[in-house]
Formats: sequence, C-alpha cells, structure tokens
Amino acid sequence: MTHTANLTPFGMHTDFLGYNQAAKLVTRVGVIECLRGMTQAIEHNFMRWQDFTKSARIGNYSPDGVIELMPISDASDYAFKYVNGHPINTHRGLPTVMAFGALANMANGMPIFLSELTLTTALRTAATSVMAARQLMRPESHCMALIGNGTQSEFQALAFHGVLGIDTLRIYDIDEMAMRKLHQNLAPYPIEVVCCSSTAEAVRGADIITTITADNTNAIILRADMVAPGTHINAVGGDCPGKTELEASLLYKGNVFVEFEPQTRIEGELQQMPADFAVTELWQVLQKSSPGRLSPTQITIFDSVGFALEDYSALRYMYARAQEAGLLQPLELIPALQDPKNLFGLLHAQAPSSVISDRVTA
Amino acid sequence: MTHTANLTPFGMHTDFLGYNQAAKLVTRVGVIECLRGMTQAIEHNFMRWQDFTKSARIGNYSPDGVIELMPISDASDYAFKYVNGHPINTHRGLPTVMAFGALANMANGMPIFLSELTLTTALRTAATSVMAARQLMRPESHCMALIGNGTQSEFQALAFHGVLGIDTLRIYDIDEMAMRKLHQNLAPYPIEVVCCSSTAEAVRGADIITTITADNTNAIILRADMVAPGTHINAVGGDCPGKTELEASLLYKGNVFVEFEPQTRIEGELQQMPADFAVTELWQVLQKSSPGRLSPTQITIFDSVGFALEDYSALRYMYARAQEAGLLQPLELIPALQDPKNLFGLLHAQAPSSVISDRVTA
Repeated sequence: MTHTANLTPFGMHTDFLGYNQAAKLVTRVGVIECLRGMTQAIEHNFMRWQDFTKSARIGNYSPDGVIELMPISDASDYAFKYVNGHPINTHRGLPTVMAFGALANMANGMPIFLSELTLTTALRTAATSVMAARQLMRPESHCMALIGNGTQSEFQALAFHGVLGIDTLRIYDIDEMAMRKLHQNLAPYPIEVVCCSSTAEAVRGADIITTITADNTNAIILRADMVAPGTHINAVGGDCPGKTELEASLLYKGNVFVEFEPQTRIEGELQQMPADFAVTELWQVLQKSSPGRLSPTQITIFDSVGFALEDYSALRYMYARAQEAGLLQPLELIPALQDPKNLFGLLHAQAPSSVISDRVTA
Repeated sequence: MTHTANLTPFGMHTDFLGYNQAAKLVTRVGVIECLRGMTQAIEHNFMRWQDFTKSARIGNYSPDGVIELMPISDASDYAFKYVNGHPINTHRGLPTVMAFGALANMANGMPIFLSELTLTTALRTAATSVMAARQLMRPESHCMALIGNGTQSEFQALAFHGVLGIDTLRIYDIDEMAMRKLHQNLAPYPIEVVCCSSTAEAVRGADIITTITADNTNAIILRADMVAPGTHINAVGGDCPGKTELEASLLYKGNVFVEFEPQTRIEGELQQMPADFAVTELWQVLQKSSPGRLSPTQITIFDSVGFALEDYSALRYMYARAQEAGLLQPLELIPALQDPKNLFGLLHAQAPSSVISDRVTA
C-alpha cells in the first residue's frame, strides 16, 4: 500500500474511484483477469486470517431492508464498507445492493481511498465463491446451475468460468427477462448456457449449484431432494436475518463452510440451524488446519454472506490497479491544514472578512 | 429531507460536500449562526430520542489511535460517521481528528449525501456542549475557562459566546503557540480573552470549565480541588478508552450527565468509575423526565464523548444549508442503471468490445 503517495504539502489527500472509473478499470484490466486477481487477493488475506481485527457487521433495519457497516483492520490498514440490501428496489429502478467504502491508514487514521463498491462487491462476492469452490468442489466439475439471474449472476458465471474452467451453465430465474439478460450478456464467452424452466431442471446434472436470488424471505429455493451426491452448493443469496434459500434439511446432508462464523450464524442459512450446528471457517481449510471435501459423494455447502475481509482485499486490489491505470481522482474529503491545530483557519481561507459577520444575538 | 431531489432518469445520485465547500458554507451562513442552528437541530433530535435505533460506535484500535464508525437511524433516515482519533497526528502535520460520513434513505438504502465531517464535527461537538450547558450551567454564567486550545477550541468558544452569551474566556494550553492561535482567531469577536499560565489560574472565577485536550492518556487535567461550587464542567477531551481528563474524585463531587450511557461507560470520564456509578442521559433532562441542575452550588459535569445522533443532526443541517446555497457537487458513488438487474451492463457501457478481451486461461 503506497500511503506516501497521498502526501501533499499540508498533509494528505483522498483518492476517489467512482463507478464509471471503476467500470473503465474493470473493462481495461478485463473482467476475468479482475476476478482472478481478486480471488488471489482474498485468498492471500484469508491465509493470514489471524492478522485481522474482525467484527460482525452492524445493521440498521427497516421494514424493506437493511443498511450495514463492515469494518476490519490489520496492523497497517483499515477498511470499511457501507452496503444496503433492499430486495424490492429493483421494482423502483434501483439496485438491490448499493455500496461504497474506504481504505485508511491505521497509523494516522487518514482515509486514503474512497471507492464505489457496488460493482466491486459483485466482483468480490464472485471471487470469494470461487475461492471456496476451489477447495470444496470435485476437481472434475465443469457444469454449474445458476439459480437467480440478477445483478450478480454474470460475475458468478465468469468467475467460475474464468478461474475454475466451468464450461456449462444451467440457468433459471422466476423473472424470465433477467434470465434472458444473463444469457445475452454471456453470449460473447465460450460457455454453453442452457436456459431452464425450473430450479429442479436447472440443477439436473450440475456439479455445482449457485443460489443467488434476492427474495427477502425465508424461501426454499433449493430442496434437499433436488441435490445429487457430490454436489458443491454455493449459497450466496441468503445473507441477512429472515432471508434464506436452502431447505434446512439440506444443511444436515452436507458439510457447511462459512466465512466468519459469528456473522453467518445471524445472517446466513445457518440462522435456521441450532446454535451448536457444526461449521468450518474457510480460512481453516485454506490454512489446512481443517479438511475441505472428504469424498467424491459428499455434499459441500458454502454458506456465503459476505465478510469485511473480502472488501478489504477488493479495495486494496482496485486501488492498486487504479493507481497503475491513472484512474483516480482527488477528493476534498479531509482538510489539508498548514497548522493542524488551526482548523478554524479554514474559514478565514474562504473569506477573511465575512467570518466575523455574525454577532451574538442571544 | 428532500430525498426526491436526488432522482435521476435511471435512479438517484449522491450529493457531495467537500471541506472547501463546507468552509465556504459556514462562512456564508456565519459560524455563530451555524452553531446556533446546529444546536437547535441536535436539541430537536435529542427531544425525540426514542425514535432512533442506537448503538455504541465500533472502534478499531492501533497503538497510536483509533478509527471508529458511528451509525444511527430513525424510520426514514440513516446516518453514519467515519472518524479517527490520533493525538500524535499534530506532530506529523495532520489533524488529530478527521471525519467524513453520509446520510442515506432507510426505505431504499441510497446514500443521498456524502460529506466532509472534520469541520462539521468541530461544530457539532461545540453545539452539543452548548445544548448541555444551557440545561446545566447557572443561568447567570458569563465566564468560561477553556483548557486545551487546539483544533476545536475556537468552535467551543464561539458556541458559548454566540448561543449562551459567554463574554469572558480564560484560556490555557501547554502548547503556547496553540494558545496564541486561539487568542488571535478570537480577536475579531467581542470576547474578553485572558491567557493564563496554568489550568489552576484559568479556572479561577470561571462559571464554566471546558476541558478539550488531546493527550492520549489517563491524564488529570482538572483536579477536584480546583473546582468551585456551582461550576459547570464541559469535559470534552476524554473520549476514548485510556483517555481521560478529570480526577476521579471530581466525578463524586458533582452530578454527571452523558449522551448515550453504554458508550460513555467505555469511552468517557466514566471509564474511571464503578459500573453502577449513577449518571443521567441528556435527553432525560431535555424531555424533563430528570432534573438538570438542582442548586446554585451544585457541580454539574457533562461527560461528552460524541454520539452518532449529533452527526445525524449535523449532516441534515449541513445538507439543507448546502442545498439552499447551491454548494453541492454530484458524486459518482452509486451506479445509475437503466435496468437495475443489469449491473454487468456498466462494463459494456465503457467499451462494448473489450469486455470480452480476456479469456479463460486456467
């Protein structure tokens, strides 16, 4: 992290990456290369899990959704993300999930990088899915069912294609327009895409099942009797209290892997299970302190909810790429002061005479 | 809150207020008028304390300081602040406290306003001090001791002068340059400023004592034997674990008032006291469910640490004023999508052909 790059004569400045610049960056680097790089970055940081100060995110809930803050830090860097989840938003022309966040320097508290994270979240969620699947799927896997063809589906599809070599996708969404959009967006890629008319049809013959629906309820998108032995399930859509996708009995049929257990207990598919239901944290598999898949017939389940360490990794990845590409813009977020104790001097700098134009009228 | 003002053809946009624009705004409105308006706004919201979903802030600590997130919401609006506290920063040319934050719409999660909050925090902290003092000081108070003449001192001075009519300030700082800076910055105002050579000298004859030092230790800035009967103490500088300013025995001599008890127990002067030490939350005094000052000889203590509701109030105040003044800038924080389920389309919008320039190389 090049903290010193932000030094100005009177302190430091904050670099900004807006959504248009982020999209330009991903397009320039290549979306699959971005997904690959982000997967490496997330893996690298999960491998040093013990270095981080972690906490479950803090949510403020309304009847239609949630707004969350996700902080994390190691000895040198701090990251946080602001993110909402409002499944009804698409009916109003807004994305279900919108996000932004920042990287800061732990030594002095300076926010050095503020970024859009809506696009970046879709990338990092797919990268995390791929990191988990690499440990848990059968090695010969080549066909994935993709249930839920909304905002994040292309990123999941291209991550599994580009990083793990998945060449066949069986897709299904209750919204046929969404399914058609996914099909069309994937057209330029060498992936066989099969549009299906039900979840049951889509999962037939799939090595991996990804569920990534946006319904804000305890839904059963995937029933236990639909899942063949040996399947790896990438359960992404159940990610807040009251929002699940898997039939509870399915969780008993497989081994469940999570990002950060205290958070997944509250937000993930796990919220359906007793408090002592056994799970494995992914870092344990990556560090080889716990096994991943045990046999070719085992069902493995990644109960993905999204964790701050993924955003930390994604922010650092995007910041480094954006620096290389020269796509950052300076943002007037933190005052650069000649005398750091003279914040009041900022007002004089604006208009020396008018600062004192108001008088006590009590 | 005019959420609809952010509507664009394909969704909404985020308004940005940088530090230069914020300084321009405060200068135009007048710093005392800002402090007065913010005091009213904070009071208004403390009066409806029960409407808010509140939590203690989450801090990530390093050897030299802390970075905190402070979220809060009511049924319609969400606010959060990012803020650091690194007392050694001034030796490196950076402010001790740097902050920014956002307002968002609870119904859809859209962040409608992102703002600098370094300047705004100094204003809202002073406004909160004045809100507390109006309830707790003796009505005839006219002289304030101001111990600690750093970043926030001018704002405290002008808030007490402009809103409560304080006409005499007795100031002291171990850094003589800081004291001279405060003296000079207050020169245009009709306030009698007396520079003192010790805390003991400064507090002599003062009706109110404000402590706002930045030392990152359990310091004793104010000893119990320095404080005369009837004094109101505005203790602002002790605001994180391991950072206090008052002698513990002084807290037993007076009645202690706090913003949000669970947070002050951890961060305020209260951290020195037993868990059952009695305190009163300020909203109880404002709502008249608890008494404020009981007698002219009582010592009252506001153990200020800063609470998210003050930032919520300040963000809304600054947003409304900045809208009126036309000082907001649009920020590309959240993608405006024609089809909210087609986030991937953002990449096509950048360069239709290059999206597919990368291929699987696994």
